[in-house]
Amino acid sequence: MTTDTPTDLSALSAALPGIDLIAAPPAYLEEPRGRFHGRAMALARPRGTAEVARIVTHAAATGLPLIPYGGGTGLVSGQVAPEGRPPLLVSLERMTAIREIHAEEALMTVEAGAILQSVQEAAEGAGMLFPLSLASQGTARIGGLLACNAGGVNVLRYGNARDLCLGIEAVLPDGSVFNGLKRLYKDNTGYDLRNLLIGAEGTLGIITAATLKLVPRPAALATAIFVVPDPAAALHLLGLARARMAGQLSAFELISGQGLDFLAEALPDLRRPFVDAPGWMVLVELGLVAGIDGNAALESLFEAGAGEGWVTDGVIAASQAQRQDFWSVREHIPEANRRIGSVSSHDIAVPVSRIPDFIAEGAALVAGLGDGSMRLNCFGHMGDGNLHYNVFPGAGRARSDYDDLRGTVKRAIHDLVHAYGGSVSAEHGIGRLKVEDLERYGDPAKLAAMRAIKAALDPAGIMNPGAVLRQG
Amino acid sequence: MTTDTPTDLSALSAALPGIDLIAAPPAYLEEPRGRFHGRAMALARPRGTAEVARIVTHAAATGLPLIPYGGGTGLVSGQVAPEGRPPLLVSLERMTAIREIHAEEALMTVEAGAILQSVQEAAEGAGMLFPLSLASQGTARIGGLLACNAGGVNVLRYGNARDLCLGIEAVLPDGSVFNGLKRLYKDNTGYDLRNLLIGAEGTLGIITAATLKLVPRPAALATAIFVVPDPAAALHLLGLARARMAGQLSAFELISGQGLDFLAEALPDLRRPFVDAPGWMVLVELGLVAGIDGNAALESLFEAGAGEGWVTDGVIAASQAQRQDFWSVREHIPEANRRIGSVSSHDIAVPVSRIPDFIAEGAALVAGLGDGSMRLNCFGHMGDGNLHYNVFPGAGRARSDYDDLRGTVKRAIHDLVHAYGGSVSAEHGIGRLKVEDLERYGDPAKLAAMRAIKAALDPAGIMNPGAVLRQG
Repeated sequence: MTTDTPTDLSALSAALPGIDLIAAPPAYLEEPRGRFHGRAMALARPRGTAEVARIVTHAAATGLPLIPYGGGTGLVSGQVAPEGRPPLLVSLERMTAIREIHAEEALMTVEAGAILQSVQEAAEGAGMLFPLSLASQGTARIGGLLACNAGGVNVLRYGNARDLCLGIEAVLPDGSVFNGLKRLYKDNTGYDLRNLLIGAEGTLGIITAATLKLVPRPAALATAIFVVPDPAAALHLLGLARARMAGQLSAFELISGQGLDFLAEALPDLRRPFVDAPGWMVLVELGLVAGIDGNAALESLFEAGAGEGWVTDGVIAASQAQRQDFWSVREHIPEANRRIGSVSSHDIAVPVSRIPDFIAEGAALVAGLGDGSMRLNCFGHMGDGNLHYNVFPGAGRARSDYDDLRGTVKRAIHDLVHAYGGSVSAEHGIGRLKVEDLERYGDPAKLAAMRAIKAALDPAGIMNPGAVLRQG
Repeated sequence: MTTDTPTDLSALSAALPGIDLIAAPPAYLEEPRGRFHGRAMALARPRGTAEVARIVTHAAATGLPLIPYGGGTGLVSGQVAPEGRPPLLVSLERMTAIREIHAEEALMTVEAGAILQSVQEAAEGAGMLFPLSLASQGTARIGGLLACNAGGVNVLRYGNARDLCLGIEAVLPDGSVFNGLKRLYKDNTGYDLRNLLIGAEGTLGIITAATLKLVPRPAALATAIFVVPDPAAALHLLGLARARMAGQLSAFELISGQGLDFLAEALPDLRRPFVDAPGWMVLVELGLVAGIDGNAALESLFEAGAGEGWVTDGVIAASQAQRQDFWSVREHIPEANRRIGSVSSHDIAVPVSRIPDFIAEGAALVAGLGDGSMRLNCFGHMGDGNLHYNVFPGAGRARSDYDDLRGTVKRAIHDLVHAYGGSVSAEHGIGRLKVEDLERYGDPAKLAAMRAIKAALDPAGIMNPGAVLRQG
């Protein structure tokens, strides 16, 4: 008999009267890639910060493990625990209020369960922009996005989730409530507990609300897909775009021909910008200040780039619909990848200027593994040095053909990333999937400090145990 | 006999062979406002990170207190210890190298002892901008600026010091070296130790180097001083400037007529923009993208503001020399304040939209204290909600006349700030001056977490003891 029995749930209900507690529905025990299956003793859906505090206080007293649960979109199994004592999932889904919007202060305060898209829409309704933007924005919740310091397509201009957060409210592992929701752009009063909880993936507390930075909406957007001969040309074009457009460059995404081929295969109805996929493309977006003609700027960028041999073809979006088509291509690549089924997927970062060398060396490396049949789909946020570097079965081959090779592939690529001064988790986090990677590649002094902090703030080890740090 | 004797120094020299150790020169025991006088057993000037690590390892083993020492410009006595066992000052002044500049990656790596102005110049030499900018930039060093999360005049656009730092190298309190200098814009591998050390004021380790973000240089700058009827009008003008100029608004500084009067009195040779000081002014600066006429934009802003009654007069800088004159006015206000001699100075922040109410309520409050003779010079970074709110003797009166009132003034203003949801230390930090304020106004859960983190990372209590947190 495991501990995830109805008896446990009714005992817990008795201990936490008034709190919505149910057996965890199966969907809460899955993660998007279907690789891990979690266990849970129950699902709690607190209606406010005070209820979260009651749950955590009870857990701290009884040693009950907790997993803070946002939208469930995480890709590193931070939200599902396949092993260990079945945890209580604490979903923030009932805490979705937009508490306040202050356009004149360029900020808003929202509860942790608010879905990113709702937050974006609320900001838009106030004439502002909340620039965090990523493929799962219709499902991902602010608390989880902050806990994992989400990135996305606008980091180049606006930063990661942590850069867009002025303050948080959180329940700490002893059940106390940290109220750090001040509407302040400057507040140097003590250690930066906010940034410690942001990116801690629920292992140091449960974020219950956040004050988010808003930015002015660009006067206009201009979007293009340019064909480039190779990643080195894309890098030169990035430099040119930065120099010419100053702070107006919002996105610079690298797309490979393999990505378009996978789209054609897995999602044939999706409108693609080129019939025959070029080897490499970049999706460039400008968010413009008033008085600048964006399409003219993109044309001028194209001409300057073409003159240097860095661009060979391109399409500038002539309408909002076409702009959305371009983004739809970019944002459906992960879905196409899922349908094809990767041997191994990597969310990596290297210094921006080393991307071309990394891509060349990585391709040679993968070609030398196994029988040399594996295919690569390398794409992503080139302006941030962040590539989604995914390895797939050879054409016509099954994923299972490569089961024995998976560990070797992952290790070889991560070793290469590390040799390039890179990160083996650029924006997805550590979760449970990459604990070993963190132990292997992480700075030893940092790891020791992390363990000391975890032990100091969560001595009972109840907060998302086994995520980020191995259980002691 | 205290412990700060030559015997101690020679024993320390024997324990740390090869490290430059001297008796601390008097200048290292002073702070800019001359309120505190520190003690020290010696001054160490390590030549590299390895030497810093040797010093800290020795201190951890022997319980020797250390004060990391940057440019000595801090205003809250974080760098001087008037009480307790005399510490070893660890100055980073010999570690000033610009290690690398990567303009194409928009970042540079510098040693902690590099002076801010040198860093700005190195960035400029590479065609980029390092936007941290403040009055003490000719003296302040990067390590100290990060340790205190410095703000300055460009926070509105580019953020605080922490927002401009991609990674740090630091010696932790056990003498281990945290190497977090990756050239990465995205790296979600574990807790954010970087931001924990940034703003910890040297109580959790010694920052020895940093990777700093660079931004594109604006194509042009445009600067004006506008006369506004009152702070509420300034707030409206800020909103207008934000909406019209999108991300091009770099600075929006509030200046009071009292500030200009103090300049006339204390620094009569300084060129001032108006012969008769208006009640309130704002210094507005735009950093423009190519293709935008800044002076036309300022003129248009003036006209729109004047139409609403929010601006009554103004001067747009017609030359670089005039622009520098405007900034010279703004940046000499602290020096004039020092010469006049304040009763009490406050580095506070409130939500931006509450500034006008705060200023009105604060003025009424101060008028009701003592015999009502005190004068206010309230100025600063309005766009960030950050005011330097300084209270001065009545005209012709001496600072010492108000000695008995000082504590009351400070407490009353800080209580008001707290009631406005504000911060009693917006950009200067806690140091030793504001430990009691932090205890009074700080979030209790945050304070408890801070103490737990301090005890976990610095169990011997050697790192800047007595700063930020009271010694246990």
